[in-house]
Parts: sequence; structure tokens; C-alpha cells
Amino acid sequence: MTEDYYAGIDIGGTTVKLAFLTETGELKDKWEIPTDVSENGKHIVDQIAASIQSRLPQHATLLGAGVGAPGFIEMKTGFIHHAVNIGWRNYPLREELERVLGVVVRVDNDANLAALGEKWRGAGDGAEEELFITLGTGVGGGIITRGQILHGSSGMGGEIGHITVIPEGGAPCNCGKTGCLETVSSATGILRMAKEKLTTNKDSALHRFEEGALTTKDIFDAAKAGDALAKDVVSEATFHLGFAIANLANALNPSKIIIGGGVSKAKESLLAPLRLVFKQFALPRVSESAEIKLAHLGNDAGIYGAVWLAIQAKATQEEEMLGKSE
Amino acid sequence: MTEDYYAGIDIGGTTVKLAFLTETGELKDKWEIPTDVSENGKHIVDQIAASIQSRLPQHATLLGAGVGAPGFIEMKTGFIHHAVNIGWRNYPLREELERVLGVVVRVDNDANLAALGEKWRGAGDGAEEELFITLGTGVGGGIITRGQILHGSSGMGGEIGHITVIPEGGAPCNCGKTGCLETVSSATGILRMAKEKLTTNKDSALHRFEEGALTTKDIFDAAKAGDALAKDVVSEATFHLGFAIANLANALNPSKIIIGGGVSKAKESLLAPLRLVFKQFALPRVSESAEIKLAHLGNDAGIYGAVWLAIQAKATQEEEMLGKSE
Repeated sequence: MTEDYYAGIDIGGTTVKLAFLTETGELKDKWEIPTDVSENGKHIVDQIAASIQSRLPQHATLLGAGVGAPGFIEMKTGFIHHAVNIGWRNYPLREELERVLGVVVRVDNDANLAALGEKWRGAGDGAEEELFITLGTGVGGGIITRGQILHGSSGMGGEIGHITVIPEGGAPCNCGKTGCLETVSSATGILRMAKEKLTTNKDSALHRFEEGALTTKDIFDAAKAGDALAKDVVSEATFHLGFAIANLANALNPSKIIIGGGVSKAKESLLAPLRLVFKQFALPRVSESAEIKLAHLGNDAGIYGAVWLAIQAKATQEEEMLGKSE
Repeated sequence: MTEDYYAGIDIGGTTVKLAFLTETGELKDKWEIPTDVSENGKHIVDQIAASIQSRLPQHATLLGAGVGAPGFIEMKTGFIHHAVNIGWRNYPLREELERVLGVVVRVDNDANLAALGEKWRGAGDGAEEELFITLGTGVGGGIITRGQILHGSSGMGGEIGHITVIPEGGAPCNCGKTGCLETVSSATGILRMAKEKLTTNKDSALHRFEEGALTTKDIFDAAKAGDALAKDVVSEATFHLGFAIANLANALNPSKIIIGGGVSKAKESLLAPLRLVFKQFALPRVSESAEIKLAHLGNDAGIYGAVWLAIQAKATQEEEMLGKSE
């Protein structure tokens, strides 16, 4: 008797993470291969297919694959306009993978897939209305409404990191604007604020960290231990994040607000101040129906979300085939 | 040969607006009856049914009805928790109307139905991703994602008026918070700001309006004519509105942003400054794919949206019956 497998694929600039999952979200295998960026990434798809085929157990059948990809993706077609790190330009990733794997393939971006993964098998508990935020080098986001990713009219849905939180005089952001949420609540932003304050403050406990060794978790820990400078930084980062989330929640009314990424390693030291700000700016009914939680799946969230997407696509395909044969 | 009609019903505190529309959105008849709030509104449903039945032409068949209702509504069931103006408490409006009319009925709130109406037959041009904002006594909103109203987890989706735009020292809002968008960009908010400024300014052209006669359109007109005080008020109202819309658009990526309500009578005097602020705070790709437009359907938008909802419900019902009979 054969077992049904789905492949989850997370394509990064240096490695491709791969996994086999069952339809119920049981992780059967997980491995990595290096990302071959030679010749503008033209070998990647074949290498993924070869790796999946050699790793697929004899008793298993591959039914579909979901892929998290970098760059700007056209969601409906899985077409990559441009992925700088890899070299793809106008690359039909979904079509290519469907050709070599012979199964249905779906493609989306990392943050959207992580949102779906957390909904399906993580902190989302299957919530149909979810706001997912990842605080890493940048601030990424994924919004789920009626159980599906909100892509918006041109695939920009969920760009929560570029909500403006400082209308005037904010720090410059990679997007070209200033004062984006990403400039104050990402790991990069939090470290920048701490370093700026450290130049004029001699007493902070944060001075004991060597140049480059300071992490956002150190800052949250120092704030918890009472360090004034660290408290200022945490207060600033959580105020803007809580304010942005509360305003989004007033419009979206999610039941789960899930925080992931490196900064979320601070756990309750992050969530406790965040919940206070959220409650202050969210409508009472909105606040009562929303739970703010830490992400559960870490770096695997995207793999789970990718497989969930592939399972949905397979089901839709079967329904359509059934419809046609009637 | 009979013609298929749908009823659109808009229940207000003083009148019930009624209309017959066809499946393609052609308005066939429109009339009003007074809202009978006696005995906690217990006669309203029967009066609506009697009015519809007496007005329905002999050659027409009623296939469904959509209803805009005040108060807090449970969207899935059409149950009204409490409608203060009418007296309903825990009232199963949808069930009651389905019983007396004998057709499928759907219920939603005014702003959500107006958003759907504009999408279907108004300024939305059928857009699947729409942000609808009505600037009247308050600020109402409706968000459409993947072609459907975003209700959120507890029916609070689209409460755009209660996005906080002034985090500290803002004016008190009816919702209990302070500094909500509604306090600065509603007709009430704009008039309040003008009156406050008029107490310390002697030169403004707005002084020629008698107490109570000043409208928001007068303020927009005076601003266009160069009145400094009016320009300040317009600049404040449009800054906060544009900022809130841009931040929402960064998350939702709508293709149409539609502005209705009494304040929108100022037309381009409102939209021109709004577009400038929007462009400043929205991501370039978000801004490029979003069109900011005036609502087209005025007070009839809700009737159109209600009928659209009824048509969808009828279609779903038929699909389900087909599925069951197979």
C-alpha cells in the first residue's frame, strides 16, 4: 500500500530546504541542498526534482508540491518577475516545476506561506482570520481572510513592514520611504535604535556587549532587568508595533495575531508590552476577539504552508476534473 | 413570461427603503415606508413583506431579498443582537424575513452593503479588492477581498473609522477611545475642527455662515478659494484620512479606494489633497495599482449591495440543491 506525500520546498539564496509531509501535516522527512545560482539559477529546478525523486520512499506517491520563493511572484501563475539573489528574471517557476515533477505545484512568498503554515499546524489553530508578522532582518507579514492568503490586487497584500509609523523624521527604509514599521520593530531597527542611544549613554548594561555581539534578545532581557536605555528601546519598538497591529486589527478583526522571526525569541518580554499597546488602540470587541501569540513552527512554517497550498490545489484540481467528467 | 426580481431593503430608524432589482442590477422600482418602531419593532418585518407583496408586479417572481440593518449583526445567521434605534434585541431578522417572504434572505450592515453595491454597479467596476469609506456623521468602512466582504472573526471587519490617527491628545470618540479617524475626517469631526479654529480666528470667510448652517462642502470650497483657516481644516482632515488609507492599502493592496458619504460632495477638493497624502505613504507598487474614486451610487449603494448578496445566496442555494440531488 502506498502513502500519499506532498513536498514542501523553500528556496533561499544559499540553500533549498525540502520536506515530505502527509495530507494531515505529518512531517516525514526534511533535508537541504545548496542553491546553485550558476547560470542565473537555470539548474535549480532540475536539482530540486532529482533530489525529491531520489529521496521519495518506494512506498510513497508524490501528489503535489508547494514552494516558497524569493523575489516578486505573480501568485496566480507562479511566475517570478525577478529574484535578485538567484538570478531568475521572468522565470515560470511553477510551470517548470510542474513539468519536471509531474504534479500540481503552487508558489507563494515566504511570509505568506509562514502565515498559512502557522494557521494549519502552528499557533493559528486553524483560524480563518489571522494576522502573521515576522520580525527578522526586516518585518514581513501575511494576512489570512476567510481561510486564504490576502494577496491584494497586485500581490502586495500583507506588506505590513511598510506601514508608516513615524510620519515625519523617521529613519530611511529599504523601500525608499521613511518611518516604516520595519525601521523600528525589525531586529535591524531595534539594534539601530539601541546603538544610537548607546553613543550618548554611559550607564547602560548593554555596553558590556562587544561590537556586533548584541542581539535583540539581549536588549529585551536588559529591559526586563531594569536597564533604562533598553527599556526605552523596547518601549519604542513595541509601541509602534502594537499601534500598527491594533489599527490593522480594527480593519481586519483577526482572531489570531501571530508573531514570529528572530525578535520573537524574547517571548513574553516582547508580547507583554505589545498586548498593552494593542489593547489601548484596538476597539474593545476587536481586542476581545484577538489572541496575540508567538509563532510555533519557527523556520519550518513556510514548508507547512507550502504543503497546505499544494493540498488545496490538488483538491481543487480533482473537483474540476470531476466536474468535467460529469 | 415572468421576470425575476430581487428585493433590496434598507432598514433605518425612521424609514425603510425598498427596491426591486433584476439579476443584472437593473433598478425596476424604488419606494419607502415609515419604520414602525412601536412594540420594539415587532411589526416591521410583516410591514416590509406586505409592502413588497403588494408592489410586486404580476409578471414578476421574487427570488430573494438582501437587507441592510442597523445594530450589531451576526453575519452568518442574520441575527441582530441589539438595534437601539428600532428596539430589536436578539432578533432573528433573517429567519423572520425568510418566513414571511418565502425566499432566501441575507443581512449585513450599511457600510458593507454599500461597499458591495459600489463594487457591483458603482465606482468599483467589479473590483475584487476594494476599500470603501463613507464620510458622514461618522466614518464607516467596508473591505472587499477576493470579491467578498471581509467580516473578520466577530463581524467587526471594516471598522475603519476607529483606526487611531492621533495617538495622544486626540478628541474623544463615540467608541470610547480618543483620536480615531472618525474624530477628524467625518463631517462631525471636520465641523468641530472648523468651529474650534473659528473661536480664535477673526478673518476667515467661514464667519459669514450662521451658526448651524456651515457644511463640510462650504469648508472645502473656502479652502479652494484660499481661506487659510479652511485650508488648515481640510489639510488636517485629508492628512489623517490619506495616512490611514495608505497604511491600510500597504496591507490590503486594493485596486479601488472608493469614498462616499456627505463629505464626498466636495469631490475633487477632497480627492486631490487625499491622493497626494496617499502617494506619500503608500508603497509605490501599492499606490500604482490603487485608484481613489468617488462613490457613484449615493444612498442607493446599500440597496444594490443587498441585492448582490441575495443573488449570491440564491446561486449558492441552487448549487447545494443540485449537489444533494445527484
